[in-house]
Amino acid sequence: MGMGETVTSPGTLYGVGVGPGDPDLLTLKAVKVIAQAPVIAYPAAEGADSLARAIAAPHIPAGRTEIAVVTPMVPGRFPANDLYDSYATEIAGHLAAGRDVAILCEGDPFLYGSFMYLFLRLAEDFPTEVVPGVSSLAACAAVAGAPLVSRNQVLTVIPGPLDAAELETRLAGSEAAAIMKVGRHLPKVRAVIAKLGRLDRAQYVEHATMANQKVLPLAKAPDTAPYFSMILVRSPEEVEVLEDRS
Amino acid sequence: MGMGETVTSPGTLYGVGVGPGDPDLLTLKAVKVIAQAPVIAYPAAEGADSLARAIAAPHIPAGRTEIAVVTPMVPGRFPANDLYDSYATEIAGHLAAGRDVAILCEGDPFLYGSFMYLFLRLAEDFPTEVVPGVSSLAACAAVAGAPLVSRNQVLTVIPGPLDAAELETRLAGSEAAAIMKVGRHLPKVRAVIAKLGRLDRAQYVEHATMANQKVLPLAKAPDTAPYFSMILVRSPEEVEVLEDRS
Repeated sequence: MGMGETVTSPGTLYGVGVGPGDPDLLTLKAVKVIAQAPVIAYPAAEGADSLARAIAAPHIPAGRTEIAVVTPMVPGRFPANDLYDSYATEIAGHLAAGRDVAILCEGDPFLYGSFMYLFLRLAEDFPTEVVPGVSSLAACAAVAGAPLVSRNQVLTVIPGPLDAAELETRLAGSEAAAIMKVGRHLPKVRAVIAKLGRLDRAQYVEHATMANQKVLPLAKAPDTAPYFSMILVRSPEEVEVLEDRS
Repeated sequence: MGMGETVTSPGTLYGVGVGPGDPDLLTLKAVKVIAQAPVIAYPAAEGADSLARAIAAPHIPAGRTEIAVVTPMVPGRFPANDLYDSYATEIAGHLAAGRDVAILCEGDPFLYGSFMYLFLRLAEDFPTEVVPGVSSLAACAAVAGAPLVSRNQVLTVIPGPLDAAELETRLAGSEAAAIMKVGRHLPKVRAVIAKLGRLDRAQYVEHATMANQKVLPLAKAPDTAPYFSMILVRSPEEVEVLEDRS
């Protein structure tokens, strides 16, 4: 290196789980990382506020550089690669200049999080740390008031967008199950659960731990559900234990 | 009621997830609940310290009533009912007297937690709230440095104590999988994964987020694993994406 050049240590990329919705369900570590990161990024659907930012809002100091990673919401399609390439380039610029970047993620970053799209583009080139968060799965079980799984039961986590035949195969082979990302797929998912004769052990949860939280038997759930909704199907064994106590 | 009688509102039973090990992975809510509960209970294996208490230790004020729920560790057997009956009676006494009781749980209370044994005995009779926590599942994925599941992949969570034939059936029908409570079952689980030709996509994680954390390819894991260990098997699709970036 010539005279006058300086070496800048790169910043660290943090994937920060902010939990399911209640701002008190952030971890102490998430709060610390957010407090010190000069750059805060978060996903936002086009034309909507960022839920991840709203959850973490009480902990974001004023005056930070903020990057909203805005993606179009096209049902049934994952966002285009070139969109993430462009955001990754912007974030890489901050990291290369030595600034830490905290990417806020709803729930946990590595359980169906859109964080993976930026992680895959940046983790090879910059120090990266993932701060795990309380998942929507744990939150839904907590507010529904019954264990997800216990003892030696198997739990299957199934995305609601799968087609009806695939859903039926997956559910038929499962014991306890959680169906995530239910949203507009609710009627399809409910029909499959009814066909398998499991409607009586299925609960519907939307916006778990948020002010507008709803917990209902699946049979009584509305036909139109928000994206942040989930269906829990207990194992027959668990239902037996829960009923025995009353 | 006659003169001189007073009515005491019962205390609240809290099931508090304290996360996977790093005390900074407690949620703000867990810290608040622990700070105000006059009675703190936690599981402890006979002859060993309580891991849940150790994780929460920096947040437990001095002078609280503490109840160690001590259970014998008999491989392959779940603790006897009368043991939990006796602890439930002790805890019910505090709740009836108007004292909140916080039961600390490793990870998340409703994902294979022993909390369920006390929950089933007390939740009918006393106000109960579950504070979800960061699960060992989320923690292992975070320290292993790759998504558990993304897009529309299915995740199967399988207890290691299942017998080899059952493990094989469950794994054969799965895409991404997490095998929990591995411990002394490691050689059996590894043999099944090898038989299915998935050794190259399996990682072994022990004591995630703790000082003695280990992350290894499953092929290189030791034969004797601690109870708090897990095996992550990626979906073939995820492995392809992860390899594409290098």
